[in-house]
Amino acid sequence: MSYLNVGASPGNVPVSHGSNMKVLDTRVRLAELVLRCLICCLALVAAVLIGSDTQVKVIFAIEKKARFTNMKALVFVVIANGIAAAYSLVQAVRCVVGMVKGSVLFSQPLAWVIFSGDQVMAYLSVAAIAAAVQSSMFAKLGQPELQWMKICNMYGKFCNQVGEGLASAFLASLSMVVLSGISAFSLFRLYGSSKSKNVARW
Amino acid sequence: MSYLNVGASPGNVPVSHGSNMKVLDTRVRLAELVLRCLICCLALVAAVLIGSDTQVKVIFAIEKKARFTNMKALVFVVIANGIAAAYSLVQAVRCVVGMVKGSVLFSQPLAWVIFSGDQVMAYLSVAAIAAAVQSSMFAKLGQPELQWMKICNMYGKFCNQVGEGLASAFLASLSMVVLSGISAFSLFRLYGSSKSKNVARW
Repeated sequence: MSYLNVGASPGNVPVSHGSNMKVLDTRVRLAELVLRCLICCLALVAAVLIGSDTQVKVIFAIEKKARFTNMKALVFVVIANGIAAAYSLVQAVRCVVGMVKGSVLFSQPLAWVIFSGDQVMAYLSVAAIAAAVQSSMFAKLGQPELQWMKICNMYGKFCNQVGEGLASAFLASLSMVVLSGISAFSLFRLYGSSKSKNVARW
Repeated sequence: MSYLNVGASPGNVPVSHGSNMKVLDTRVRLAELVLRCLICCLALVAAVLIGSDTQVKVIFAIEKKARFTNMKALVFVVIANGIAAAYSLVQAVRCVVGMVKGSVLFSQPLAWVIFSGDQVMAYLSVAAIAAAVQSSMFAKLGQPELQWMKICNMYGKFCNQVGEGLASAFLASLSMVVLSGISAFSLFRLYGSSKSKNVARW
């Protein structure tokens, strides 16, 4: 963060400070756009992998079908990742419009909306992945003390695909956590002082 | 947020802006202290309620004991809330020392440490509560498609106490989410400009 020149007085080095803030703005904007596109792809992959996952087994002439709807935590992950993908797409479009239009797109209320949205998405996705990982552990390992038997030795292909989906959802969650930090930075530095507000408005 | 005077130039209303920032500082510091004490109590209550919960049942002359260690998600909640309580206590002491000593306690690296710690604690507690709620749903409702039977009709007292513990942990998590927003505010407004940095350093 040394390129921020936080210790330097704007009165002493006005040009360097201004250009450094511009460089920082560009980097933050670029990082935000890349992360939003990444989240959109990862969340979509997770939702599709888990949502389309099925496996049919015939046990004593009875056909049994494993689907993600059998486990509420997987339904939660599919919905949360669907919402995350759509939200990230909208936000990525906003980022591109902001970059094309130039610097005066960002307002304080909009920064609050983006910050709140990113926070909700980050906590929602972390909660969804935690609940789903917990369910998957039961499915994979069972819980002998409670006579809950493991089901992944019966539905191996189904479980593997859910695992791949969860890995993708986990990476999306991680990106959302980083992104919520970036949007917090973009919002709260507006409260530094009125001088910085003009620089930070994009 | 009107008391922030963000739209006013410090050159025009220097006294009002400075005093408003001081009022804001005091309010933020007080809110932080109250939240940290609240989290410490709630997390401790949650950890004790779940950690001390046991129920013995005799089924066909075999004694069966329900404990929180039977479910990994509950162990996760107890550990996460224990850590949260200890962390909040340390941070509350730091807050009190900061308030007693005056304004020059806060540095940028320390703000980064507090921000990172609060973020980790908030996501950790949300993940723990999500995993535990998922497990509790299985225990309460069972999962008939997978032949996982409900166990709360056997261990009613145990389940009720876990429920109370989870309610306390949920309130602690909610407070941690708000607190992580406050520490993000305290950190990132230092990046507004060098003028505001001096005001914000506490």
